[in-house]
Amino acid sequence: MSNPTEQGYFTEENSAEVVVSRNAKAKDARLAEVMSSIIKHLHAMVKEVEPTQEEWLEAIKFLTETGHKSDDWRQEFILLSDVLGVSMLVDAINNRKPSGASESTVLGPFHVPDAPDRPMGSNICLDGKGEKMLVKGRILDVDGNPIAGAKIDVWQTNDDGFYDVQQKGIQPDFNLRGVFRTGDDGTYWFWGAKPRFYPIPDDGPVGRLLGQLGRHPFRPAHLHYIVEADGYERLVTHIFDPDDDYIHSDAVFGVKESLMAKFEKIEDPGRIVAEGVDGPFYEVIHDFVLAPEK
Amino acid sequence: MSNPTEQGYFTEENSAEVVVSRNAKAKDARLAEVMSSIIKHLHAMVKEVEPTQEEWLEAIKFLTETGHKSDDWRQEFILLSDVLGVSMLVDAINNRKPSGASESTVLGPFHVPDAPDRPMGSNICLDGKGEKMLVKGRILDVDGNPIAGAKIDVWQTNDDGFYDVQQKGIQPDFNLRGVFRTGDDGTYWFWGAKPRFYPIPDDGPVGRLLGQLGRHPFRPAHLHYIVEADGYERLVTHIFDPDDDYIHSDAVFGVKESLMAKFEKIEDPGRIVAEGVDGPFYEVIHDFVLAPEK
Repeated sequence: MSNPTEQGYFTEENSAEVVVSRNAKAKDARLAEVMSSIIKHLHAMVKEVEPTQEEWLEAIKFLTETGHKSDDWRQEFILLSDVLGVSMLVDAINNRKPSGASESTVLGPFHVPDAPDRPMGSNICLDGKGEKMLVKGRILDVDGNPIAGAKIDVWQTNDDGFYDVQQKGIQPDFNLRGVFRTGDDGTYWFWGAKPRFYPIPDDGPVGRLLGQLGRHPFRPAHLHYIVEADGYERLVTHIFDPDDDYIHSDAVFGVKESLMAKFEKIEDPGRIVAEGVDGPFYEVIHDFVLAPEK
Repeated sequence: MSNPTEQGYFTEENSAEVVVSRNAKAKDARLAEVMSSIIKHLHAMVKEVEPTQEEWLEAIKFLTETGHKSDDWRQEFILLSDVLGVSMLVDAINNRKPSGASESTVLGPFHVPDAPDRPMGSNICLDGKGEKMLVKGRILDVDGNPIAGAKIDVWQTNDDGFYDVQQKGIQPDFNLRGVFRTGDDGTYWFWGAKPRFYPIPDDGPVGRLLGQLGRHPFRPAHLHYIVEADGYERLVTHIFDPDDDYIHSDAVFGVKESLMAKFEKIEDPGRIVAEGVDGPFYEVIHDFVLAPEK
């Protein structure tokens, strides 16, 4: 016969301690540590909220439905993590950058690993929709020196607010995606289409929760970047349009002050001729600073 | 264009406050209160644990699998709530009893609402398996007066450790279930089979988690009761065998000190003859005290 735990039997007062004490023989110290924290905070939350049995069953049903909505193509628990700010918090914890380095934000679900290499200056907008946008800047180290041979992987929605992978057969393959490499001066430039705000998938339990909380499902317009170079930390980030209606209420909390870019409308005829376009265009100039590898 | 929240943009430091501030327009004050608590404790847990991106994805996958394992017949999220002690905590919060009243414990998934009424003294063991057990006691108010007309709904596993509903077609219908009503003296008595410990369903993600935590899936032997009477609070509880191997490590934390019963083996030939049985039997004497209705 086993012995009583030091904490004795479960009571409302000692509940978390009794449950944690059961993990004394866990096979993995990290798992035991994580579960201990989960149990303590979960019990503290329940004691604070004092859910009725019916409310607790509602929570169980919500989690079950969130699981049922998830499959190979849709991950409703990641969406839940996103709208509760947890994905961004995990990102922040794992990407603390030294002073002066560019900040990260969430990867999101629409990156594809095999986007084509393109020559610097290419137009990645293959469907011709939307307002023309010239994006340029430099990849620098924290001392302001240009980084040569940096790999820049960019992706964005089209003018309808969808990524190519959301509209297979409708958008051209690899529309608004491209991989570029910097030369000795560390500069990059390419043409795209001015991005637009768009909703996260809101036809599931997470969308319903947002509605009940009086929250909208929109992400403000942004461009995605992954910037990599030998000897530097990989940077996964976005740049945002500060004039977007949803810039202060990103449904997934991805916006940071330092990730604002200026989307400037260029109407100067001289610039229009010089860039070889047929009318006004947007220009976005944004440098990225990579942290040295740890 | 919307205004920035008072908290400004999301940072690692202010993460929970920024997310909570978004619920300012929630349609339901209780939902906003609950989500505020969930968000604060979830963020505090993440800041304490500092999960890697890979660990967070493991958590997402675990929750997804827990959802996928759940259907009309299996509720893996309730099982998760059970093994983390949350079901018992919610039970404790919702069933605070006045001094002297019997304590509650979890209902569990195996109650059926339509068990047959049986005359006092019936044998509810229809499959003839196991060791004979006589259960008896009184239903009392907090002043020690007997309660007449109390309804006592009991259920238990058979000697193989299964409830009838887990073995439809193998066990007789309503095996080891019955509903009894007390007379003026408040006493009850019936025959059953000595209950056995049994495992909770452990072939899913929750069972795997228990294994990784070095925990077994067993519940110590017990009898389930729901006791109801007009003018009194409904009591949902068990009584436990204190000599069970798992009495100090119930997988779902249902055991309370006050719910111990004595399972006494009666070998006295006089008693055997008096009870009209063919050999030794177990006797369990346990009174229940109902709290007055609030």
